[in-house]
Amino acid sequence: MRRFSASRKDFRLLMLKMMQDSGNKLEAKMDNLQETLTKEVQDIQLKQEEMQNTITEIKNSLEAANSRIQEAEERISEVEDRLVEIMDVEQKREKRLKTNEESLRELWDNVKRTNIRIMGVPEGEEREKGTEKIFEEIIAENFPSMGKESLTQIWEAQQVPYKINPRRNTLRHILIKLIKIKDKEKILKAVREKKQITYKGTPIRLSADFSTETLQARREWHGILNVMKGKNLQPRLLYPARLSFRFEGEIKTFTDKQKLREFSNTKPALQQILKEFL
Amino acid sequence: MRRFSASRKDFRLLMLKMMQDSGNKLEAKMDNLQETLTKEVQDIQLKQEEMQNTITEIKNSLEAANSRIQEAEERISEVEDRLVEIMDVEQKREKRLKTNEESLRELWDNVKRTNIRIMGVPEGEEREKGTEKIFEEIIAENFPSMGKESLTQIWEAQQVPYKINPRRNTLRHILIKLIKIKDKEKILKAVREKKQITYKGTPIRLSADFSTETLQARREWHGILNVMKGKNLQPRLLYPARLSFRFEGEIKTFTDKQKLREFSNTKPALQQILKEFL
Amino acid sequence: MRRFSASRKDFRLLMLKMMQDSGNKLEAKMDNLQETLTKEVQDIQLKQEEMQNTITEIKNSLEAANSRIQEAEERISEVEDRLVEIMDVEQKREKRLKTNEESLRELWDNVKRTNIRIMGVPEGEEREKGTEKIFEEIIAENFPSMGKESLTQIWEAQQVPYKINPRRNTLRHILIKLIKIKDKEKILKAVREKKQITYKGTPIRLSADFSTETLQARREWHGILNVMKGKNLQPRLLYPARLSFRFEGEIKTFTDKQKLREFSNTKPALQQILKEFL
Repeated sequence: MRRFSASRKDFRLLMLKMMQDSGNKLEAKMDNLQETLTKEVQDIQLKQEEMQNTITEIKNSLEAANSRIQEAEERISEVEDRLVEIMDVEQKREKRLKTNEESLRELWDNVKRTNIRIMGVPEGEEREKGTEKIFEEIIAENFPSMGKESLTQIWEAQQVPYKINPRRNTLRHILIKLIKIKDKEKILKAVREKKQITYKGTPIRLSADFSTETLQARREWHGILNVMKGKNLQPRLLYPARLSFRFEGEIKTFTDKQKLREFSNTKPALQQILKEFL
Repeated sequence: MRRFSASRKDFRLLMLKMMQDSGNKLEAKMDNLQETLTKEVQDIQLKQEEMQNTITEIKNSLEAANSRIQEAEERISEVEDRLVEIMDVEQKREKRLKTNEESLRELWDNVKRTNIRIMGVPEGEEREKGTEKIFEEIIAENFPSMGKESLTQIWEAQQVPYKINPRRNTLRHILIKLIKIKDKEKILKAVREKKQITYKGTPIRLSADFSTETLQARREWHGILNVMKGKNLQPRLLYPARLSFRFEGEIKTFTDKQKLREFSNTKPALQQILKEFL
Repeated sequence: MRRFSASRKDFRLLMLKMMQDSGNKLEAKMDNLQETLTKEVQDIQLKQEEMQNTITEIKNSLEAANSRIQEAEERISEVEDRLVEIMDVEQKREKRLKTNEESLRELWDNVKRTNIRIMGVPEGEEREKGTEKIFEEIIAENFPSMGKESLTQIWEAQQVPYKINPRRNTLRHILIKLIKIKDKEKILKAVREKKQITYKGTPIRLSADFSTETLQARREWHGILNVMKGKNLQPRLLYPARLSFRFEGEIKTFTDKQKLREFSNTKPALQQILKEFL
């Protein structure tokens, strides 16, 4: 070893040192890289774990939401079913209600069947002498030949408040309830034949009495009835509110305007007559 | 330094070069690794950020969905509550409707209480002489001893369209409305005692008159009534439609077949008689 | 080259070896790091992919949930609309039902208008002689001056089961149905004037007859009517169930207690009189 000079020895040491330094530097750099990347990877993993938890929470939450939706849908279905049931029951009840209304109307018509309605007698007259007496006077004034026996068959005579249009300055009606329908029919037939009825010389009107509903339904035919009379179609109002008239040699009967409109659409002559009323 | 030969100098340079090269190569590799991994980590982070945003969006969206579900559930609850209310009101209304129907039926029975229904008079007879005259003739033909005074108490006599079964080729009914119930009862009692009533020698039927509903309810007892008559159970139809009969020494009354069925289930003898009708 | 001694050669080889070893070690470490990190990054990417899939699934699922919510909301809206319709129809039907109930009540009042209700005749009396005969005796006993003609105008006389309170040990009522309202009014006016009516010396009561509903509504005024009589307010019950009385020189009329309460709140004197009844 002696042969080695100092410079050779130094070089050898230097070389070793350089080698070590370079290795250390690289290793340090590598460690640094490892540390940095490992840190980042760990951060990512942590974050990923967090997200995974959140996703699991969301999945659970979504599952719960789906359950609630499911339940809500079932409740809606039940509600819909019940609605259908209710509509069904209601339809049946509607039918019964209509039947009842018609039955009531018929009952009222039945109750009023022997009534004669007198319109146009001045207010106050009946207070002095009573409605029954007024009726007797009307019969005596207009139908002197009519037997007294009808008059003894009065069931009830009353003055009625005129409810239909309280603003109209109209005279109150008097209702005469006879016992026998035959008497009512006899008197009303005589009224139709005589055309003008008076009470102490003043024109008054006598008519049959009906339920409010029947009266309303009959009133709706009035305009058509009048124009048909003018055209000699021999119109008549049948019970409860059917219009009957003679057209092209046949008797036609209609329960409502809609049906009459449809018929008149096929008959230009009739359509022309009724154009203002349908 | 002179002592160093060229070869020695070359070696040293070579060594240094080798050392540098090796270091550079490793460093380049490391840089490459760093770059690659850093890129990948960045990609991952970017992706992670995106996912985080998506998750946040989802969370918000889920929250909104839950709010909507909440609201929908509340609306359903309210609808359900209203349905319960409606059902409740409907139940009360159903009761009132039934009460009205019964009241109407009673009113009609009341209105028809003084009626006598005549079935079997040949069509056309009444056109010639009037329904009232036919009734008088029936009384004279079948009950010659009955006083004339009942006959003068006729309120109304009319022919009714036979609506119940329009296909049956049946004779139209005549309705006689008497003024006093007593008269009706006297005549119907005489009818029951005489059994066979005739008009001009032809058998006809006279019966009490009821509302359509009561008639229908009474008609449902007919088969049972007839078989009970045959077994001498002395059956009777009470108003409005109750079956009464004598069984095991007692008078039994039933308002509907269900009740009679339940009773007959405990009485084999009765069950045997009624087996075809319950 | 010969000049190189063995030791120098060895050193050179050693140096090369050391350099190679250090390089290899570092490279191995780097490879190891690369492998480790690459593995982790791959794991993360795999995991990320999985999560991405889950998120996509969640998004789809949430979208589906939102669609279901949307649909559910639409169904709820439709149900709500239908409910509004039903409530609307029901309100109209309720009105019609009320109208029918009032019409029925009026019809019953109308049917019962010529009735006189007799209360207090001992049970069994009517079985011996008939209700009509009892009525005749009551008239003869209490109103000897009243003409016989009213009595011949009896339409119907019947005993009614006292349904209102079956537990009360009360006598059954007798209903006399007259033909003319005038006769009923004449008799009831005589009853009011005489105050005490008897049958064979025992006090009985005669009154007008009304529908169950009207009777109930009238009965609700009874307490007030009695206390007002005591205070000389001249109270009267008008048809169907209106209370009328004289107060501060004027005739006041009330259809229900609520209205009377409101009025009495402004009149301390009246409020004092009625304090127990409103």
